[in-house]
Amino acid sequence: MNNNRVSKKDIGAMSTLFPAPILVVGSYNADGTPNIMTVSFAGIISMQPPTLYVSLRKATLTYENVVREGAFTVNVPNDKYIKETDFIGLNSGKKVRKFDVTGLIPVKSEIINAPYVHEFPVIYECRVTQSLEIGSHTQFIAEILNIKANENILDEKGKPDIEKISPIMMGSSQNTNFYYGLGEELEKGFVFKKKFLTEE
Amino acid sequence: MNNNRVSKKDIGAMSTLFPAPILVVGSYNADGTPNIMTVSFAGIISMQPPTLYVSLRKATLTYENVVREGAFTVNVPNDKYIKETDFIGLNSGKKVRKFDVTGLIPVKSEIINAPYVHEFPVIYECRVTQSLEIGSHTQFIAEILNIKANENILDEKGKPDIEKISPIMMGSSQNTNFYYGLGEELEKGFVFKKKFLTEE
Repeated sequence: MNNNRVSKKDIGAMSTLFPAPILVVGSYNADGTPNIMTVSFAGIISMQPPTLYVSLRKATLTYENVVREGAFTVNVPNDKYIKETDFIGLNSGKKVRKFDVTGLIPVKSEIINAPYVHEFPVIYECRVTQSLEIGSHTQFIAEILNIKANENILDEKGKPDIEKISPIMMGSSQNTNFYYGLGEELEKGFVFKKKFLTEE
Repeated sequence: MNNNRVSKKDIGAMSTLFPAPILVVGSYNADGTPNIMTVSFAGIISMQPPTLYVSLRKATLTYENVVREGAFTVNVPNDKYIKETDFIGLNSGKKVRKFDVTGLIPVKSEIINAPYVHEFPVIYECRVTQSLEIGSHTQFIAEILNIKANENILDEKGKPDIEKISPIMMGSSQNTNFYYGLGEELEKGFVFKKKFLTEE
């Protein structure tokens, strides 16, 4: 019961998850060149049909592209591409051709009009179903039509293996932002359904 | 350029992030008892005003509560409470009083009609602004009115320190679900704006 002694402090509203996911959105510009942008405002909304969202500011080139094309990819960077991912998040496609400069290879999706990042281990191919303006951002809700995964990150059953993906996420420690990797396996999941009941 | 040799496989649509965030939603039942539920369909939607969402199935007690009260808390579990969090995700509040059984302490928010988990290090106090039915789930969009944080997870500037929070997330490896902790600091964030430009 030591925890009772920890006091809580009101720190006001912040738009941060702990940790924040780090993903890269691929889209085509009006002239057909491919663009990428790093986001952390993204998540799964529905299981059936599988649906995700990304929230974008209107000032971004990706916003314009997603409005025009109604499609985008979400690319999961791994820990080999942190510098590229950081660069992609800090530079606008309006000024820099980010695929060219980073050397990442754009590949056109076969099912939507959007490019994906060849080097990244997991790709969601998404078609926009709805968009909502929420404060500073527009939430693009999109059906996940397909996932493309590098064969070397699949387990024996053909399912993505999170440890082989080596995803990255972001957080702040000692007032400094860091990219983090996935930590250790701590416990198995979905196994404690009866734990507290049977101990009583 | 070895990566060019890695071939990609189409694995169909899945409603999974890699890794999935793990959060606990607090709400009051119609009779005033507190309930909690574990979710991974959650994320930040807007920076200003700070806005998040959780997606819930209609079959859950939390769904009913959030519709009725228009408010909920999002509680960030740390790695000391994995078994409780797993239990909370596997049992329905319709059958089990999850606060009572796990021994976690409910505290009423001072600003919304929802309980939070005393033991968890970070709490978002949220008021619903909009709800959307998206396939199997309802997305509850909510303004983050305040964050409560344990004083012992704040850095010197009073900002939540992700390493002190010790958040958990979920993924599958070798076809088994695991809770994972946060991994190592890999790189500083927001520092590679010029990297690929200056190397050219």
